[in-house]
Amino acid sequence: MSIPTAPPSGFRDFLPAQVAARHAAIETISRVYRSFGFQPVATSAVEDLSILLGKGGGENEKLIFKILKRGESLERAAAEKSELADLGLRFDLTLPLTRYYSRHGSLLSHPFKAFQLGPVWRAERAQKGRYREFTQCDVDIIGSDSWGAEVEVITAIGAVFSALGVDQPSVLLNDRSLIYAMLDQAGVPAGNRVPVCVILDKLDKAGRAKVLSDLSTAVGAAPAQALEAMMMAETPDLAALRAAAPEAVARLELIISALQAGSKHPDRFVLSPSLMRGFDYYTGPVFEFRHPALSGSLGGGGRYDNLTENFGTQHTPACGGSIGFERLMLILEEARKAADSGAPDAVVAVFSDELRGRSLEVAAALRAKGLSVDVYPGAGKLGRQFKYADQKKAGYALVIGPDEAARDVVQVKNLATGDEQAMTVDEVCARIAARA
Amino acid sequence: MSIPTAPPSGFRDFLPAQVAARHAAIETISRVYRSFGFQPVATSAVEDLSILLGKGGGENEKLIFKILKRGESLERAAAEKSELADLGLRFDLTLPLTRYYSRHGSLLSHPFKAFQLGPVWRAERAQKGRYREFTQCDVDIIGSDSWGAEVEVITAIGAVFSALGVDQPSVLLNDRSLIYAMLDQAGVPAGNRVPVCVILDKLDKAGRAKVLSDLSTAVGAAPAQALEAMMMAETPDLAALRAAAPEAVARLELIISALQAGSKHPDRFVLSPSLMRGFDYYTGPVFEFRHPALSGSLGGGGRYDNLTENFGTQHTPACGGSIGFERLMLILEEARKAADSGAPDAVVAVFSDELRGRSLEVAAALRAKGLSVDVYPGAGKLGRQFKYADQKKAGYALVIGPDEAARDVVQVKNLATGDEQAMTVDEVCARIAARA
Repeated sequence: MSIPTAPPSGFRDFLPAQVAARHAAIETISRVYRSFGFQPVATSAVEDLSILLGKGGGENEKLIFKILKRGESLERAAAEKSELADLGLRFDLTLPLTRYYSRHGSLLSHPFKAFQLGPVWRAERAQKGRYREFTQCDVDIIGSDSWGAEVEVITAIGAVFSALGVDQPSVLLNDRSLIYAMLDQAGVPAGNRVPVCVILDKLDKAGRAKVLSDLSTAVGAAPAQALEAMMMAETPDLAALRAAAPEAVARLELIISALQAGSKHPDRFVLSPSLMRGFDYYTGPVFEFRHPALSGSLGGGGRYDNLTENFGTQHTPACGGSIGFERLMLILEEARKAADSGAPDAVVAVFSDELRGRSLEVAAALRAKGLSVDVYPGAGKLGRQFKYADQKKAGYALVIGPDEAARDVVQVKNLATGDEQAMTVDEVCARIAARA
Repeated sequence: MSIPTAPPSGFRDFLPAQVAARHAAIETISRVYRSFGFQPVATSAVEDLSILLGKGGGENEKLIFKILKRGESLERAAAEKSELADLGLRFDLTLPLTRYYSRHGSLLSHPFKAFQLGPVWRAERAQKGRYREFTQCDVDIIGSDSWGAEVEVITAIGAVFSALGVDQPSVLLNDRSLIYAMLDQAGVPAGNRVPVCVILDKLDKAGRAKVLSDLSTAVGAAPAQALEAMMMAETPDLAALRAAAPEAVARLELIISALQAGSKHPDRFVLSPSLMRGFDYYTGPVFEFRHPALSGSLGGGGRYDNLTENFGTQHTPACGGSIGFERLMLILEEARKAADSGAPDAVVAVFSDELRGRSLEVAAALRAKGLSVDVYPGAGKLGRQFKYADQKKAGYALVIGPDEAARDVVQVKNLATGDEQAMTVDEVCARIAARA
């Protein structure tokens, strides 16, 4: 009997209280996104590998859980030494969304404001806090090149944190074209942009000295020092940034002032020239939510104006953001703001199989009043049934024995105090409703 | 540009109105299950193949989407000609639940009443109405051998249909041990049970004559006729059934009378000796929900007392049922009872980038009153923005131009009638709330 009972490495089971808390958070996120006019979309968990690998594949290829071909296709692939897999699990929600938009665009309103909540899968090494299956909560506007789109996306994500009672995070903002302009001005050759951005992206984790030394190794001391002055200063030199990329900085300033105008914490929106955001596909403004309780980000996003072109669709401007759901749940759990486990209001005991019908009637009457009521699935031994009611954290246990059935009453036991009292079903409803 | 924009065969994208309808149904199911004291559980989408294949594998093996090993493990597997896959996508929610219970049982209440809603994946040939990714809505009671568990599971599923406004389906009931007793009595050798059950399971689709002929071929004419008399009669011969399996029939009669007592349609609970339910793992009562609008079942389940033994856990009685979510959505769509697409109450136009701030303020004020409000992501060209509001099926478009901003009012356009009127934000709230 060596069959494992744990889920595979990096995958998780959730206990009832955890499921209830996650579900409540998902509901709030969905409600807030809707309240901004974003519409829900859903795509399949599985995509053709050709889509997931995109043009060139590269880094993503290692992340993808690939699905083995089946039957004859697998035999043929093995014989011909061709690809063994044709499908894969999605590793984010943005790529499926651009495919979705390319396919269904004619049925959607324009610009299209979409939100998508769901699991994604990444074949990374599992670590504490990093899972191979995790939930993303994306919000996107496709078909608008206005900076109003960034304002809307960032405001909607901020409204989610407010609705969940999370301290409003800081929002760092930068622009991909400002980054490129700074690299140009520092004398970084265009061919070195990507490795230099990868080094700069590690500033938070690796620290200033390490990044400076890595930059020097990569592009030489003078460019490294120029980058340090422009990108790592305590307070950004706005005049220098404006000189490097006037349009990008003007756009960021418009976005920031619009966000500040609607916020109780205007100081939390900050132009941060060192903010990279990992993904290659960003083309304009990028942003990241930071919370003091976390070392990493609580969410982020940016503008990606070129992604739909992968699907042969005409150039379509787009921007979007995502909430780091697993990190959000950490914060909520630590703040004990997570929802309760959904304990039932009452457990109705079953005195005997003969009297089960009466217990079912009482339960149905209480449910009709909107209460959550559990009927003990067995019968007999009241001590065991009270223990079950305690385990379920129910407020009351209700017993209908032959005596109570004859008198048309219910014996009500308050499980917190131990008090017992006989009352009619209407009185039970009133009592439980009053407590809640 | 040959990248496909369709999801893979058997997988689906959902348009906003479909997502909203599915989500609303899932919420109702979750609420109703909770109201019966069932607790939510969630398991990972991916399981070790050893668990999915169980003892022997067999039929399930073909259904499983297997996940290719990665990196060195794959190279080694290819070189050693060993298994190329180590993980697979779950094909139902029952097997993961029994694994979950075996692992986490000490943290759960007993008997454990669980519900689980989520996608499962089956590598079957895709057909109309049969998908490779679909949602299941399971409800289970683990750790009770009382027939009260069956009553609770069937009642909870029935309550879901009521809550969704679906005509109460019929419930067919049978018992696995009654089936075996009937086969014994008809003279079917024990080794032929499974193929005979497979033939009988096709009664609805293949029809009486075909089943009778297949049975004759399989076990001979006399047993086939005996089975026909016992299992396919218009009205079951209860005396004969009681003689064959007195305990099983007595249990079914208790379950049926308890269900009838709590129902407005007592005639819809029917002992049906030909009901098979496909899965091998059932050990006692089985049941199936039938709706006149569908040829197949709308849900079903049964008792499976042996499943946790797979995980080395002591013998644990269990029973559960599941709703066929995709079929349920078909019925809801046809009855036009599906939820609406979540159209926003209003779209706030953006007269110019300079005036965007005022539009954002108005939107925030309306959202604070609980309204769903969409701010146009761009600016300018009001005609285009009104068209957008129409596409989103919004009730109103709100415009704040320089004149309105100066007078601290909002121009409100009723998109159904075309009427326009200037009013204060408070008046807008009252107007929209009154309409809703």
